[in-house]
Amino acid sequence: MKVRIFVRLKPGVLDPQGRAVHHALEGLGFDGVDDVRIGRMVEMDVADDTSDEALDKMCAQLLANTVIEDYRIEKVD
Amino acid sequence: MKVRIFVRLKPGVLDPQGRAVHHALEGLGFDGVDDVRIGRMVEMDVADDTSDEALDKMCAQLLANTVIEDYRIEKVD
Repeated sequence: MKVRIFVRLKPGVLDPQGRAVHHALEGLGFDGVDDVRIGRMVEMDVADDTSDEALDKMCAQLLANTVIEDYRIEKVD
Repeated sequence: MKVRIFVRLKPGVLDPQGRAVHHALEGLGFDGVDDVRIGRMVEMDVADDTSDEALDKMCAQLLANTVIEDYRIEKVD
């Protein structure tokens, strides 16, 4: 089973990397860009019998820092 | 307009970060995980009249390294 996990900073948490990208886009002449935030995408092949609970645990224990980050799990097939 | 850009390593390009995560998951006792690959997600608010061409240019010029990375642009609304 293919799984995608999207990890992003919680709203309100400062994103210096996003700011740098925003600034760089402006420097390159791209106008009209407002807010930029950078997140992570983890693509995994897991055994078909992997439970939602196990996936959730992987995120909470390793893949995301739940103090400042939210995550979303998406099963691809 | 909200836009999400997903950047990931091309197939065949070595992903040491993904390997490290894979190894760490096994160390934590999560079995059945096969392949792990890490990508980036860039969320942007752009002006509604931003063309697909401009978005494509942003990716090619700054957001992705097209030598080793693929990108996908998704308009959220």
